[in-house]
Amino acid sequence: MGRIICTGLGPGDPDLISVRSDRLIRAATHVAYFRKLGRAGQARRIVTGMLRSDVTEYPMEYPVTTELPFDSPEYRDALARFYDDWAARLADLSRTADVVVLCEGDPFFYGSFMHLHSRLQGRAEVEIVPGITGMTGCWNATGQPITWGDDVLTVLMATLPEADLVSHMQRSDALVIMKTGRNLPRVRRALQAAGRLQDAWLVERGTMPDQRVARLADVDPADCPYFAIVLVHGHGRRPELEAAE
Amino acid sequence: MGRIICTGLGPGDPDLISVRSDRLIRAATHVAYFRKLGRAGQARRIVTGMLRSDVTEYPMEYPVTTELPFDSPEYRDALARFYDDWAARLADLSRTADVVVLCEGDPFFYGSFMHLHSRLQGRAEVEIVPGITGMTGCWNATGQPITWGDDVLTVLMATLPEADLVSHMQRSDALVIMKTGRNLPRVRRALQAAGRLQDAWLVERGTMPDQRVARLADVDPADCPYFAIVLVHGHGRRPELEAAE
Ligand SMILES: C[S@@+](CC[C@H](N)C(=O)[O-])C[C@H]1O[C@@H](n2cnc3c(N)ncnc32)[C@H](O)[C@@H]1O
Ligand SMILES: C[S@@+](CC[C@H](N)C(=O)[O-])C[C@H]1O[C@@H](n2cnc3c(N)ncnc32)[C@H](O)[C@@H]1O
Repeated sequence: MGRIICTGLGPGDPDLISVRSDRLIRAATHVAYFRKLGRAGQARRIVTGMLRSDVTEYPMEYPVTTELPFDSPEYRDALARFYDDWAARLADLSRTADVVVLCEGDPFFYGSFMHLHSRLQGRAEVEIVPGITGMTGCWNATGQPITWGDDVLTVLMATLPEADLVSHMQRSDALVIMKTGRNLPRVRRALQAAGRLQDAWLVERGTMPDQRVARLADVDPADCPYFAIVLVHGHGRRPELEAAE
Repeated sequence: MGRIICTGLGPGDPDLISVRSDRLIRAATHVAYFRKLGRAGQARRIVTGMLRSDVTEYPMEYPVTTELPFDSPEYRDALARFYDDWAARLADLSRTADVVVLCEGDPFFYGSFMHLHSRLQGRAEVEIVPGITGMTGCWNATGQPITWGDDVLTVLMATLPEADLVSHMQRSDALVIMKTGRNLPRVRRALQAAGRLQDAWLVERGTMPDQRVARLADVDPADCPYFAIVLVHGHGRRPELEAAE
């Protein structure tokens, strides 16, 4: 009886994978990962050159989505069936061998694996190995601390309604905005409305070889990179209390 | 001419250190870390058994604080002198050798190293290696994802005024509260006022051998562990949009 082990890969640089995940990935005989149809897949790309030559790979390809709006009941059903099918296949596989599921960043932080995780309860032994989140890689890429002292940090998805974005942006010292992509124009408007646009950075493919770090205000508004995070750094409320806990 | 390399150690389990940090720590001949006077130091404890036998260690001990209130100008001055002195010493050392500074979690996430980092600008070559944050280790310890779909996550320091805590707790789906310690009673009151106490978890020494995970409501109010994080999990706003970016 094997296990399903979901390993966090960290933000992209393979040197930032944890010692435990690194060991598990290099020893794995069965490796699964999500990807979009027709793409190599971010997770698979991170482990290039690390897998055994006799590994069996299971690319879990999201159902095609061009005809269906993302928020339609039909798309939601297709996605639920997709997760149901893969949960069943992985549970089956784990009866005879360990299966390693690759996950960008940390699996429990906005990760797709949780849709399998909830379905696998009681059906297989599941282990999670934490990873460095994408946002941690991205704020390190800016060369500045994201938070000091008593700063409040809020993590927002760019898919939220614009008014919600604005109200959170006004109240928090430091900001992380993920799932930007086609939503970047809305993020930009919300930051502008909250008076934070001049302090915002865009980090694309943080810690990867083709990483880009730029002030968001300097980025062409038509340029909406697919894999990017927007950051606003905190300036340290009461940093003198740092040693006080 | 050497460098000052601040390595993130992750949440505590040495197996969760990144491949790069692990390599740097094992090769280091000069290792510095913060600690309180009379304590082993959390960072130093994480690397037990990993350092070279001929390593030189530099424990950077916070100035004694029993007589001075943490928010007094005198204490702030003592702390500023402490950081000034160590920045000068490390810059000096780095003229002839690499110096590895150990930092719990990720150095740029509420880390004390940033007080040296700002002082070292232009005086030494400084490199930062990201780490898994303590909160990431702690939410993994609960065995549940911290965020799904469009959840908003807010990170709060328990040192904030109670009214600020309450207002952020009411507005966010998922919560992380750090620097709890003696502030835990205030955190508990704020969670209660925000209607979130029943959903809160306390994780003490997450990923360490003596880790404790408990519902905060079940913890004796007199029990205020020193090294702990309070968490409230999100429940996934619109999780069906997961694959949509
Ligand atoms: C579904 S979330 C998965 C988050 C992941 N589990 C983590 O811990 O970072 C995907 C989003 O993460 C962000 N992201 C993750 N890693 C990144 C990186 N290295 N550079 C830029 N953005 C990244 C992007 O905003 C992307 O839309
Ligand atoms: C000054 S902050 C440093 C944070 C660190 N740089 C990080 O990335 O996690 C110290 C606080 O982090 C929290 N913390 C960090 N690691 C933890 C762990 N493994 N278990 C419980 N709390 C932890 C505690 O709340 C502690 O008061």
